[in-house]
Amino acid sequence: MKIAVLGGTGNIGFGLAMRWAKGGDEVTIGSRGLEKAEEAAAKASERSGQPIRGAANPEAAAWADVVVLSVPYEAQRPTLESVAGAVQGKLVISAVNPMNPEALHVAVQPPEGSALEQAQEQLGGGVRVVAAFQTIPAHSARDLNRDFAGDVLVCGDDADAKAEARTIVERTGFRAIDAGPAANARVVEGFASLSLAIKKTHPLKRIGFRVVSMDDPVPASAS
Amino acid sequence: MKIAVLGGTGNIGFGLAMRWAKGGDEVTIGSRGLEKAEEAAAKASERSGQPIRGAANPEAAAWADVVVLSVPYEAQRPTLESVAGAVQGKLVISAVNPMNPEALHVAVQPPEGSALEQAQEQLGGGVRVVAAFQTIPAHSARDLNRDFAGDVLVCGDDADAKAEARTIVERTGFRAIDAGPAANARVVEGFASLSLAIKKTHPLKRIGFRVVSMDDPVPASAS
Repeated sequence: MKIAVLGGTGNIGFGLAMRWAKGGDEVTIGSRGLEKAEEAAAKASERSGQPIRGAANPEAAAWADVVVLSVPYEAQRPTLESVAGAVQGKLVISAVNPMNPEALHVAVQPPEGSALEQAQEQLGGGVRVVAAFQTIPAHSARDLNRDFAGDVLVCGDDADAKAEARTIVERTGFRAIDAGPAANARVVEGFASLSLAIKKTHPLKRIGFRVVSMDDPVPASAS
Repeated sequence: MKIAVLGGTGNIGFGLAMRWAKGGDEVTIGSRGLEKAEEAAAKASERSGQPIRGAANPEAAAWADVVVLSVPYEAQRPTLESVAGAVQGKLVISAVNPMNPEALHVAVQPPEGSALEQAQEQLGGGVRVVAAFQTIPAHSARDLNRDFAGDVLVCGDDADAKAEARTIVERTGFRAIDAGPAANARVVEGFASLSLAIKKTHPLKRIGFRVVSMDDPVPASAS
Protein backbone atom coordinates (compact mmCIF):
# COMPACT_ATOMS: atom_id res chain seq x y z
CA MET A 1 0.00 0.00 0.00
CA LYS A 2 1.21 3.52 -0.81
CA ILE A 3 1.24 5.60 2.37
CA ALA A 4 2.11 9.31 2.46
CA VAL A 5 3.04 10.67 5.88
CA LEU A 6 2.55 14.44 5.80
CA GLY A 7 4.72 15.92 8.50
CA GLY A 8 6.76 12.73 8.51
CA THR A 9 9.88 14.81 9.05
CA GLY A 10 9.23 14.90 12.79
CA ASN A 11 6.69 14.13 15.48
CA ILE A 12 5.27 10.65 15.44
CA GLY A 13 5.18 10.60 11.63
CA PHE A 14 8.90 9.95 11.27
CA GLY A 15 8.65 6.78 13.34
CA LEU A 16 5.46 5.60 11.65
CA ALA A 17 7.00 6.07 8.20
CA MET A 18 9.87 3.76 9.17
CA ARG A 19 7.52 1.20 10.74
CA TRP A 20 5.30 0.99 7.67
CA ALA A 21 8.30 0.76 5.35
CA LYS A 22 9.72 -2.10 7.40
CA GLY A 23 6.34 -3.84 7.21
CA GLY A 24 6.41 -3.78 3.41
CA ASP A 25 4.34 -0.70 2.59
CA GLU A 26 5.60 1.92 0.12
CA VAL A 27 6.15 5.14 2.04
CA THR A 28 6.65 8.76 1.09
CA ILE A 29 7.43 11.39 3.70
CA GLY A 30 5.71 14.67 2.90
CA SER A 31 6.66 18.14 4.04
CA ARG A 32 5.92 21.70 3.04
CA GLY A 33 9.34 21.96 1.42
CA LEU A 34 10.75 19.29 -0.88
CA GLU A 35 14.27 19.60 0.49
CA LYS A 36 13.23 18.98 4.10
CA ALA A 37 11.14 16.01 3.01
CA GLU A 38 14.03 14.47 1.08
CA GLU A 39 16.42 14.96 4.00
CA ALA A 40 14.04 13.24 6.40
CA ALA A 41 13.38 10.47 3.88
CA ALA A 42 17.11 9.81 3.50
CA LYS A 43 17.50 9.61 7.27
CA ALA A 44 14.46 7.35 7.61
CA SER A 45 15.73 5.08 4.81
CA GLU A 46 19.11 4.77 6.49
CA ARG A 47 17.67 4.07 9.95
CA SER A 48 15.07 1.58 8.76
CA GLY A 49 17.04 -0.06 5.97
CA GLN A 50 14.06 0.45 3.65
CA PRO A 51 13.59 2.78 0.67
CA ILE A 52 11.51 5.81 1.76
CA ARG A 53 10.94 8.73 -0.59
CA GLY A 54 10.44 12.42 0.17
CA ALA A 55 8.08 14.80 -1.61
CA ALA A 56 6.25 18.06 -1.11
CA ASN A 57 2.92 17.43 0.62
CA PRO A 58 0.66 17.81 -2.47
CA GLU A 59 2.80 15.40 -4.54
CA ALA A 60 3.01 12.91 -1.68
CA ALA A 61 -0.77 13.02 -1.15
CA ALA A 62 -1.50 12.68 -4.89
CA TRP A 63 0.75 9.60 -5.11
CA ALA A 64 -0.64 7.82 -2.04
CA ASP A 65 -3.52 5.45 -1.40
CA VAL A 66 -3.66 6.52 2.23
CA VAL A 67 -2.61 9.87 3.67
CA VAL A 68 -1.43 10.22 7.26
CA LEU A 69 -1.51 13.67 8.81
CA SER A 70 1.23 14.14 11.40
CA VAL A 71 1.66 17.89 11.68
CA PRO A 72 1.37 20.21 14.69
CA TYR A 73 -2.24 21.27 15.19
CA GLU A 74 -1.41 24.83 14.08
CA ALA A 75 -0.31 23.51 10.67
CA GLN A 76 -3.33 21.26 10.12
CA ARG A 77 -5.58 23.70 8.26
CA PRO A 78 -2.98 25.02 5.75
CA THR A 79 -1.61 21.52 5.20
CA LEU A 80 -5.06 20.11 4.40
CA GLU A 81 -5.75 23.11 2.17
CA SER A 82 -2.65 22.28 0.14
CA VAL A 83 -3.73 18.66 -0.37
CA ALA A 84 -7.53 18.99 -0.44
CA GLY A 85 -7.80 18.02 -4.13
CA ALA A 86 -5.24 15.21 -3.88
CA VAL A 87 -6.99 13.39 -1.00
CA GLN A 88 -10.48 13.24 -2.52
CA GLY A 89 -11.81 9.69 -2.31
CA LYS A 90 -8.97 8.59 -0.06
CA LEU A 91 -8.58 7.58 3.57
CA VAL A 92 -6.91 10.23 5.75
CA ILE A 93 -5.55 9.16 9.14
CA SER A 94 -5.05 12.13 11.45
CA ALA A 95 -2.44 11.80 14.19
CA VAL A 96 -2.93 15.43 15.23
CA ASN A 97 -3.14 16.43 18.91
CA PRO A 98 -4.39 19.95 19.64
CA MET A 99 -2.05 21.37 22.30
CA ASN A 100 -1.69 24.68 24.08
CA PRO A 101 1.97 25.65 23.53
CA GLU A 102 1.87 27.71 26.75
CA ALA A 103 0.61 24.77 28.87
CA LEU A 104 1.11 21.44 27.14
CA HIS A 105 -0.29 19.46 30.08
CA VAL A 106 -3.69 21.17 29.94
CA ALA A 107 -6.13 19.63 27.47
CA VAL A 108 -7.54 22.03 24.86
CA GLN A 109 -10.06 21.63 22.08
CA PRO A 110 -10.57 23.41 18.77
CA PRO A 111 -13.93 25.17 18.27
CA GLU A 112 -15.12 22.17 16.22
CA GLY A 113 -14.58 19.92 19.27
CA SER A 114 -11.59 18.03 17.92
CA ALA A 115 -8.91 18.33 15.27
CA LEU A 116 -10.53 15.31 13.60
CA GLU A 117 -13.92 16.99 13.31
CA GLN A 118 -12.24 20.15 12.03
CA ALA A 119 -10.41 18.14 9.37
CA GLN A 120 -13.59 16.31 8.35
CA GLU A 121 -15.44 19.61 8.04
CA GLN A 122 -12.65 21.14 5.97
CA LEU A 123 -12.23 18.17 3.61
CA GLY A 124 -15.92 17.37 3.15
CA GLY A 125 -17.77 14.11 2.73
CA GLY A 126 -15.68 12.89 -0.19
CA VAL A 127 -12.77 12.16 2.16
CA ARG A 128 -12.94 9.57 4.93
CA VAL A 129 -11.07 10.88 7.97
CA VAL A 130 -10.21 8.91 11.10
CA ALA A 131 -8.10 9.78 14.16
CA ALA A 132 -5.33 7.47 15.38
CA PHE A 133 -1.98 7.51 17.19
CA GLN A 134 -2.91 10.36 19.58
CA THR A 135 -2.05 8.10 22.51
CA ILE A 136 1.45 7.11 21.37
CA PRO A 137 4.59 9.07 22.35
CA ALA A 138 6.61 10.05 19.26
CA HIS A 139 9.85 8.55 20.56
CA SER A 140 8.23 5.14 21.03
CA ALA A 141 7.21 5.09 17.37
CA ARG A 142 10.85 5.73 16.40
CA ASP A 143 12.14 2.87 18.47
CA LEU A 144 11.79 0.14 15.86
CA ASN A 145 12.05 -3.62 16.29
CA ARG A 146 9.84 -3.80 19.32
CA ASP A 147 6.23 -3.58 20.34
CA PHE A 148 4.90 -1.32 23.05
CA ALA A 149 2.31 -1.74 25.79
CA GLY A 150 0.22 1.32 24.89
CA ASP A 151 -2.77 1.15 22.57
CA VAL A 152 -3.79 3.26 19.58
CA LEU A 153 -7.41 4.44 19.86
CA VAL A 154 -9.16 4.94 16.51
CA CYS A 155 -12.15 7.29 16.15
CA GLY A 156 -14.30 8.23 13.18
CA ASP A 157 -17.83 8.23 11.84
CA ASP A 158 -17.26 5.81 8.94
CA ALA A 159 -17.12 2.21 10.19
CA ASP A 160 -15.44 0.84 7.06
CA ALA A 161 -12.81 3.57 7.13
CA LYS A 162 -12.10 2.77 10.76
CA ALA A 163 -11.77 -0.95 10.05
CA GLU A 164 -9.36 -0.20 7.21
CA ALA A 165 -7.43 2.25 9.38
CA ARG A 166 -7.13 -0.30 12.19
CA THR A 167 -5.50 -2.78 9.80
CA ILE A 168 -3.05 -0.13 8.65
CA VAL A 169 -2.33 0.97 12.24
CA GLU A 170 -1.63 -2.58 13.34
CA ARG A 171 1.02 -2.94 10.63
CA THR A 172 3.04 -0.47 12.72
CA GLY A 173 3.06 -2.96 15.60
CA PHE A 174 0.63 -1.12 17.87
CA ARG A 175 -2.72 -2.59 18.88
CA ALA A 176 -5.59 -0.58 17.38
CA ILE A 177 -8.82 -0.21 19.36
CA ASP A 178 -12.02 1.20 17.83
CA ALA A 179 -12.99 3.95 20.28
CA GLY A 180 -16.16 5.11 18.58
CA PRO A 181 -17.42 8.02 16.51
CA ALA A 182 -15.62 11.23 15.54
CA ALA A 183 -17.05 12.99 18.60
CA ASN A 184 -14.96 10.70 20.80
CA ALA A 185 -11.82 12.22 19.30
CA ARG A 186 -12.52 15.06 21.74
CA VAL A 187 -11.50 12.61 24.42
CA VAL A 188 -8.75 10.73 22.60
CA GLU A 189 -6.98 13.87 21.38
CA GLY A 190 -6.61 14.92 25.02
CA PHE A 191 -4.43 11.94 25.90
CA ALA A 192 -1.19 13.71 24.97
CA SER A 193 -1.88 16.49 27.46
CA LEU A 194 -3.00 13.89 30.00
CA SER A 195 0.33 12.09 29.61
CA LEU A 196 2.28 15.26 30.21
CA ALA A 197 0.16 16.06 33.26
CA ILE A 198 0.70 12.58 34.69
CA LYS A 199 4.47 12.95 34.24
CA LYS A 200 4.47 15.93 36.58
CA THR A 201 3.57 13.68 39.53
CA HIS A 202 4.47 10.14 38.53
CA PRO A 203 7.93 8.85 37.64
CA LEU A 204 6.76 7.14 34.46
CA LYS A 205 8.60 7.44 31.18
CA ARG A 206 6.99 7.23 27.74
CA ILE A 207 3.46 7.17 29.09
CA GLY A 208 0.84 5.25 27.18
CA PHE A 209 -2.68 4.02 27.86
CA ARG A 210 -3.80 0.45 27.64
CA VAL A 211 -7.39 -0.65 27.32
CA VAL A 212 -7.78 -3.45 29.83
CA SER A 213 -10.46 -5.72 31.04
CA MET A 214 -10.78 -4.78 34.70
CA ASP A 215 -10.43 -8.48 35.49
CA ASP A 216 -6.95 -8.67 33.96
CA PRO A 217 -4.22 -9.42 36.47
CA VAL A 218 -2.97 -6.26 38.16
CA PRO A 219 0.55 -5.57 36.86
CA ALA A 220 3.35 -4.62 39.20
CA SER A 221 3.07 -0.87 39.56
CA ALA A 222 5.77 1.35 38.14
CA SER A 223 4.69 4.46 40.00
CA MET B 1 -12.38 9.34 58.14
CA LYS B 2 -16.08 10.15 57.72
CA ILE B 3 -17.06 9.72 54.07
CA ALA B 4 -20.52 10.52 52.70
CA VAL B 5 -21.34 8.97 49.34
CA LEU B 6 -24.16 10.98 47.78
CA GLY B 7 -25.92 8.75 45.28
CA GLY B 8 -24.40 5.75 47.02
CA THR B 9 -27.62 3.87 46.43
CA GLY B 10 -26.50 2.96 42.93
CA ASN B 11 -23.90 3.61 40.28
CA ILE B 12 -20.31 3.33 41.38
CA GLY B 13 -21.09 4.90 44.77
CA PHE B 14 -22.63 1.74 46.19
CA GLY B 15 -19.44 -0.22 45.58
CA LEU B 16 -17.18 2.56 46.81
CA ALA B 17 -19.16 2.89 50.04
CA MET B 18 -18.59 -0.79 50.78
CA ARG B 19 -14.90 -0.59 49.86
CA TRP B 20 -14.25 2.37 52.17
CA ALA B 21 -16.19 0.74 55.01
CA LYS B 22 -14.15 -2.44 54.64
CA GLY B 23 -10.98 -0.34 54.73
CA GLY B 24 -11.94 1.16 58.10
CA ASP B 25 -13.54 4.48 57.10
CA GLU B 26 -16.89 5.52 58.55
CA VAL B 27 -19.36 5.67 55.68
CA THR B 28 -22.81 7.16 55.17
CA ILE B 29 -24.75 6.56 51.98
CA GLY B 30 -26.70 9.66 50.98
CA SER B 31 -29.77 9.88 48.82
CA ARG B 32 -32.51 12.38 48.08
CA GLY B 33 -34.90 10.35 50.20
CA LEU B 34 -34.02 9.01 53.64
CA GLU B 35 -35.83 5.72 53.10
CA LYS B 36 -33.95 4.87 49.92
CA ALA B 37 -30.65 5.76 51.60
CA GLU B 38 -31.39 3.53 54.58
CA GLU B 39 -32.38 0.62 52.35
CA ALA B 40 -29.15 0.88 50.37
CA ALA B 41 -27.14 1.26 53.57
CA ALA B 42 -28.67 -1.90 55.02
CA LYS B 43 -27.84 -3.81 51.84
CA ALA B 44 -24.29 -2.43 51.74
CA SER B 45 -23.79 -3.29 55.43
CA GLU B 46 -24.93 -6.82 54.85
CA ARG B 47 -22.81 -7.33 51.75
CA SER B 48 -19.67 -5.77 53.19
CA GLY B 49 -20.04 -6.96 56.79
CA GLN B 50 -19.40 -3.39 57.95
CA PRO B 51 -21.72 -0.84 59.55
CA ILE B 52 -22.84 1.68 56.89
CA ARG B 53 -25.45 4.32 57.66
CA GLY B 54 -28.01 5.95 55.40
CA ALA B 55 -29.11 9.59 55.48
CA ALA B 56 -30.68 12.24 53.31
CA ASN B 57 -27.99 14.01 51.26
CA PRO B 58 -27.81 17.25 53.32
CA GLU B 59 -27.46 15.33 56.62
CA ALA B 60 -24.89 12.97 55.12
CA ALA B 61 -22.86 15.88 53.75
CA ALA B 62 -23.04 17.82 57.03
CA TRP B 63 -21.78 14.80 58.97
CA ALA B 64 -18.89 13.95 56.66
CA ASP B 65 -15.27 15.06 56.38
CA VAL B 66 -15.23 14.16 52.70
CA VAL B 67 -18.19 14.13 50.33
CA VAL B 68 -18.27 11.88 47.27
CA LEU B 69 -20.68 12.75 44.50
CA SER B 70 -21.92 9.69 42.62
CA VAL B 71 -25.14 10.80 40.99
CA PRO B 72 -26.19 10.79 37.32
CA TYR B 73 -25.01 13.98 35.63
CA GLU B 74 -28.59 15.25 35.36
CA ALA B 75 -28.89 15.17 39.16
CA GLN B 76 -25.59 16.90 39.87
CA ARG B 77 -26.80 20.50 40.03
CA PRO B 78 -29.84 19.93 42.30
CA THR B 79 -27.85 17.57 44.53
CA LEU B 80 -25.06 20.11 44.99
CA GLU B 81 -27.63 22.83 45.60
CA SER B 82 -29.08 20.77 48.44
CA VAL B 83 -25.67 20.34 50.12
CA ALA B 84 -23.95 23.61 49.18
CA GLY B 85 -23.84 24.88 52.76
CA ALA B 86 -22.87 21.54 54.25
CA VAL B 87 -19.80 21.03 52.05
CA GLN B 88 -18.17 24.43 52.66
CA GLY B 89 -14.52 23.94 53.59
CA LYS B 90 -14.62 20.25 52.68
CA LEU B 91 -13.18 18.07 49.96
CA VAL B 92 -15.71 16.94 47.35
CA ILE B 93 -14.78 14.03 45.08
CA SER B 94 -16.93 13.94 41.95
CA ALA B 95 -17.42 10.58 40.25
CA VAL B 96 -19.87 12.08 37.77
CA ASN B 97 -19.74 11.20 34.06
CA PRO B 98 -21.76 13.39 31.70
CA MET B 99 -23.54 11.02 29.32
CA ASN B 100 -26.03 11.40 26.50
CA PRO B 101 -28.89 9.04 27.44
CA GLU B 102 -29.77 8.69 23.74
CA ALA B 103 -26.23 7.64 22.76
CA LEU B 104 -24.19 6.54 25.74
CA HIS B 105 -21.16 5.67 23.60
CA VAL B 106 -20.75 9.21 22.24
CA ALA B 107 -18.78 11.54 24.50
CA VAL B 108 -20.59 14.73 25.52
CA GLN B 109 -19.55 17.73 27.55
CA PRO B 110 -21.48 20.22 29.66
CA PRO B 111 -21.24 23.89 28.62
CA GLU B 112 -18.64 24.43 31.38
CA GLY B 113 -16.39 21.83 29.70
CA SER B 114 -16.76 19.14 32.35
CA ALA B 115 -19.04 18.15 35.19
CA LEU B 116 -16.11 18.88 37.51
CA GLU B 117 -15.73 22.46 36.32
CA GLN B 118 -19.49 22.93 36.56
CA ALA B 119 -19.45 21.66 40.16
CA GLN B 120 -16.50 23.89 41.07
CA GLU B 121 -18.28 26.89 39.58
CA GLN B 122 -21.48 26.11 41.45
CA LEU B 123 -19.83 25.46 44.82
CA GLY B 124 -17.33 28.31 44.70
CA GLY B 125 -13.78 28.63 45.95
CA GLY B 126 -14.57 27.56 49.52
CA VAL B 127 -14.99 23.96 48.41
CA ARG B 128 -12.16 21.90 46.96
CA VAL B 129 -13.50 19.71 44.16
CA VAL B 130 -11.65 16.93 42.36
CA ALA B 131 -12.77 14.35 39.79
CA ALA B 132 -12.09 10.64 40.28
CA PHE B 133 -13.48 7.19 39.43
CA GLN B 134 -14.77 8.20 35.96
CA THR B 135 -12.71 5.37 34.46
CA ILE B 136 -14.02 2.55 36.67
CA PRO B 137 -17.07 0.43 35.74
CA ALA B 138 -19.65 0.44 38.55
CA HIS B 139 -19.86 -3.35 38.74
CA SER B 140 -16.11 -3.65 39.32
CA ALA B 141 -16.36 -1.38 42.35
CA ARG B 142 -19.06 -3.67 43.80
CA ASP B 143 -16.94 -6.75 43.38
CA LEU B 144 -15.13 -6.56 46.73
CA ASN B 145 -12.11 -8.53 47.93
CA ARG B 146 -10.09 -8.02 44.79
CA ASP B 147 -8.10 -5.40 42.97
CA PHE B 148 -8.61 -4.46 39.36
CA ALA B 149 -6.25 -3.62 36.51
CA GLY B 150 -7.83 -0.27 35.59
CA ASP B 151 -6.64 3.04 37.03
CA VAL B 152 -8.51 5.94 38.59
CA LEU B 153 -7.48 9.27 37.06
CA VAL B 154 -7.71 12.25 39.42
CA CYS B 155 -8.14 15.82 38.10
CA GLY B 156 -8.43 19.14 39.87
CA ASP B 157 -6.86 22.55 40.23
CA ASP B 158 -5.85 22.24 43.91
CA ALA B 159 -2.72 20.11 44.27
CA ASP B 160 -3.22 19.43 48.00
CA ALA B 161 -6.83 18.40 47.43
CA LYS B 162 -5.72 16.04 44.70
CA ALA B 163 -3.03 14.48 46.88
CA GLU B 164 -5.58 13.98 49.68
CA ALA B 165 -8.10 12.56 47.21
CA ARG B 166 -5.55 10.13 45.81
CA THR B 167 -4.94 8.71 49.30
CA ILE B 168 -8.68 8.29 49.82
CA VAL B 169 -9.12 6.74 46.37
CA GLU B 170 -6.35 4.23 46.98
CA ARG B 171 -8.08 3.01 50.13
CA THR B 172 -10.70 1.57 47.75
CA GLY B 173 -8.02 -0.66 46.20
CA PHE B 174 -7.69 1.19 42.90
CA ARG B 175 -4.48 2.90 41.82
CA ALA B 176 -4.93 6.69 41.67
CA ILE B 177 -3.06 8.67 39.02
CA ASP B 178 -2.85 12.47 39.09
CA ALA B 179 -4.01 13.44 35.59
CA GLY B 180 -3.65 17.19 35.90
CA PRO B 181 -5.83 20.27 36.28
CA ALA B 182 -9.62 20.54 36.26
CA ALA B 183 -9.58 21.22 32.51
CA ASN B 184 -8.34 17.66 31.96
CA ALA B 185 -11.60 16.34 33.41
CA ARG B 186 -12.98 17.13 29.95
CA VAL B 187 -10.90 14.19 28.78
CA VAL B 188 -11.25 11.89 31.79
CA GLU B 189 -15.04 12.26 32.01
CA GLY B 190 -15.26 10.94 28.46
CA PHE B 191 -13.78 7.56 29.37
CA ALA B 192 -17.16 6.03 30.24
CA SER B 193 -18.49 6.76 26.75
CA LEU B 194 -15.20 5.57 25.29
CA SER B 195 -15.57 2.25 27.13
CA LEU B 196 -19.07 1.74 25.77
CA ALA B 197 -17.88 2.60 22.26
CA ILE B 198 -15.02 0.12 22.51
CA LYS B 199 -17.42 -2.62 23.63
CA LYS B 200 -19.31 -2.31 20.35
CA THR B 201 -16.33 -3.69 18.44
CA HIS B 202 -14.16 -5.51 20.95
CA PRO B 203 -15.15 -8.52 23.05
CA LEU B 204 -13.87 -7.00 26.28
CA LYS B 205 -15.85 -7.05 29.48
CA ARG B 206 -15.62 -4.45 32.25
CA ILE B 207 -13.38 -2.14 30.27
CA GLY B 208 -10.84 -0.04 32.12
CA PHE B 209 -7.82 2.04 31.22
CA ARG B 210 -4.36 1.54 32.61
CA VAL B 211 -1.62 4.13 32.50
CA VAL B 212 1.45 2.26 31.30
CA SER B 213 5.00 2.99 30.51
CA MET B 214 5.24 2.19 26.81
CA ASP B 215 8.26 0.03 27.67
CA ASP B 216 6.20 -2.28 29.91
CA PRO B 217 5.94 -5.83 28.62
CA VAL B 218 3.10 -6.20 26.12
CA PRO B 219 0.37 -8.25 27.82
CA ALA B 220 -1.36 -11.09 26.03
CA SER B 221 -4.17 -9.40 24.14
CA ALA B 222 -7.76 -10.11 25.12
CA SER B 223 -9.27 -8.68 21.95
